[in-house]
Amino acid sequence: MTMLNIRYEKTTAPKELPKEDNPLKFGTIFTDHMFIMNYETGKGWHDARIVPYAPLSLDPSAMVFHYGQEMFEGLKAYKTEDGRTLLFRPNKNIERANNTNRRICIPEIPEEDFLDAIKAVVKTDEAWIPTKPGTSLYIRPFVIATDPFLGVRPSDTYMFIIILSPVGAYYPEGLNPVKIWIEDEYVRAVKGGVGEAKTGANYVASLAAQVKAHDDGYSQVLWLDGVERKYIEEVGAMNIFFKINGTVVTPKLNGSILPGVTRNSVIELCKTWGVPVEERKISVDELYEASNNGSLEEVFGTGTAAVISPVGHLRFEDHVMQVSDGGIGELSQRIYDTITGIQLGDIEDTFNWTVEVK
Amino acid sequence: MTMLNIRYEKTTAPKELPKEDNPLKFGTIFTDHMFIMNYETGKGWHDARIVPYAPLSLDPSAMVFHYGQEMFEGLKAYKTEDGRTLLFRPNKNIERANNTNRRICIPEIPEEDFLDAIKAVVKTDEAWIPTKPGTSLYIRPFVIATDPFLGVRPSDTYMFIIILSPVGAYYPEGLNPVKIWIEDEYVRAVKGGVGEAKTGANYVASLAAQVKAHDDGYSQVLWLDGVERKYIEEVGAMNIFFKINGTVVTPKLNGSILPGVTRNSVIELCKTWGVPVEERKISVDELYEASNNGSLEEVFGTGTAAVISPVGHLRFEDHVMQVSDGGIGELSQRIYDTITGIQLGDIEDTFNWTVEVK
Repeated sequence: MTMLNIRYEKTTAPKELPKEDNPLKFGTIFTDHMFIMNYETGKGWHDARIVPYAPLSLDPSAMVFHYGQEMFEGLKAYKTEDGRTLLFRPNKNIERANNTNRRICIPEIPEEDFLDAIKAVVKTDEAWIPTKPGTSLYIRPFVIATDPFLGVRPSDTYMFIIILSPVGAYYPEGLNPVKIWIEDEYVRAVKGGVGEAKTGANYVASLAAQVKAHDDGYSQVLWLDGVERKYIEEVGAMNIFFKINGTVVTPKLNGSILPGVTRNSVIELCKTWGVPVEERKISVDELYEASNNGSLEEVFGTGTAAVISPVGHLRFEDHVMQVSDGGIGELSQRIYDTITGIQLGDIEDTFNWTVEVK
Repeated sequence: MTMLNIRYEKTTAPKELPKEDNPLKFGTIFTDHMFIMNYETGKGWHDARIVPYAPLSLDPSAMVFHYGQEMFEGLKAYKTEDGRTLLFRPNKNIERANNTNRRICIPEIPEEDFLDAIKAVVKTDEAWIPTKPGTSLYIRPFVIATDPFLGVRPSDTYMFIIILSPVGAYYPEGLNPVKIWIEDEYVRAVKGGVGEAKTGANYVASLAAQVKAHDDGYSQVLWLDGVERKYIEEVGAMNIFFKINGTVVTPKLNGSILPGVTRNSVIELCKTWGVPVEERKISVDELYEASNNGSLEEVFGTGTAAVISPVGHLRFEDHVMQVSDGGIGELSQRIYDTITGIQLGDIEDTFNWTVEVK
């Protein structure tokens, strides 16, 4: 089935599958197996294997614990009504993973091997893919630096691991519009930094603002640029879109924004549908103005975990912006239905976005 | 000896001590024991123990591997001629550790417990403190987020660990002046970010520029501010000082610069000696001007690992700045001799900087 030479060690103690009628809390349940491959300078990536899901054993001086050299990705596998297993645009995640790797000096992973590894581990634990509406198998590939060494330099050894988690909705609120806090004190990333890479650094930097926002009843933080502190960037776990006067606007990728796969899919869908879409700078002032004059029609976040997350309310300092009637926008709903329909094989995939795991 | 209730599990297989005449490569050799303490929301820090140095066992979904929630510190223990063991300003590191913890949403560690833990583990492995000139026992306290959970939020569980490494010089060049590359493309940290915290995020962001600088024959990168990209910040592993026309100048702490313990010690020493010292913004242009008109008398980095690291040559884009005659400046040498003299107990500690481990 695969070009990559994978050694298999199957579990002798399979876990019980989650009950279909229990809600699957995102990111808490893991399947029976995981994929692992090692890297060593001079030897390259080697020893690809699928082994029982189990703790990792790492020296306390392993560089990942100290210097943050870690990359991750997130994508999903879906079970179709006729029993096929589909991945959604895995090559976009693999491409982005290697962009992250380059930025943070982790050796690249050959794209075909990466895809083979995903397919092989998903196939192994295929029985774990849930089938209820809104559920899927979340796939988490990641690389960690493992040299037992204190000192700042790229590691000479790494582990590439793929773990799998059956998931329900990322936001328990589901498609109910969320409240977003526009942050004016903390900064997530800046031009020249690692904002466009999917690495722990961007997430640890986001925690303090997220805690502050949660304490005020907001579910997510919207980040501004780190230089002028007035242009909208992203939500940390999502990219952000605004429908203003019939035109869909999203911040242009500038080096400090994560290039989301769902973001890209939304832009392609809008173009196909003839909905005007602009990737450009958008300031908080422009947003506030649009909210005031009634032209802010829809706001939604996009991400692998939630697909589409409608936004009903934004706050910047003392200004509250209500979006339209606070419900789910027509375009938001159409995008959500189309992407999830393609992911589940219910809508014809004219974009060739899905890849079947055979 | 200690207020903290520490459980001891001594190794049954002690390692051989490094030979005194072998050079100790920084950060590669670890002692027989380590300190560990766990945290759990609702339970607080608990189960303080000193156990044999051994691999950590962590779930592949442990948050530290994905979201970078990790804090570290670095300080040293020295053996005096009369056989006492001294720590250098441990309370400054403990204070900074808790500043980092607050910034990245890790629960604080009670200061007295932190100091007790350092003393206890250093005492346990006291025989590992090397005694040759320039050597010491490097102490690495760190905290990692351990919740087995995929999703962005502060972890509910942590491990606080202290490991020990007998070390020689951090820079194999020793007090020989180093060449510094002033970076104009990548950014380490920005106001509002985590630059003043000692967390992996700042180090992973520095790797690409460091690799570029090394390839060009430079040993360290000097970072500029992330907004205007013209003010000098720090070297990543060191703070930076300039002696211009008799006055010592170092960048003012602004939120994106690490508040170094050695930096603080240098400022206090200069003040005591009546050497004018200014903490203020300093631009690359000012530096270039000082280099051109001959007023750039000394440049040196400060850090726990190297203490003082003279800089003989800086490069910004196509401009090369030679510092004075390229040797070690008189003030740099005096500061180095005084700090290391106090650390080793050879010079009277009128500042009360050293803490004896009894």
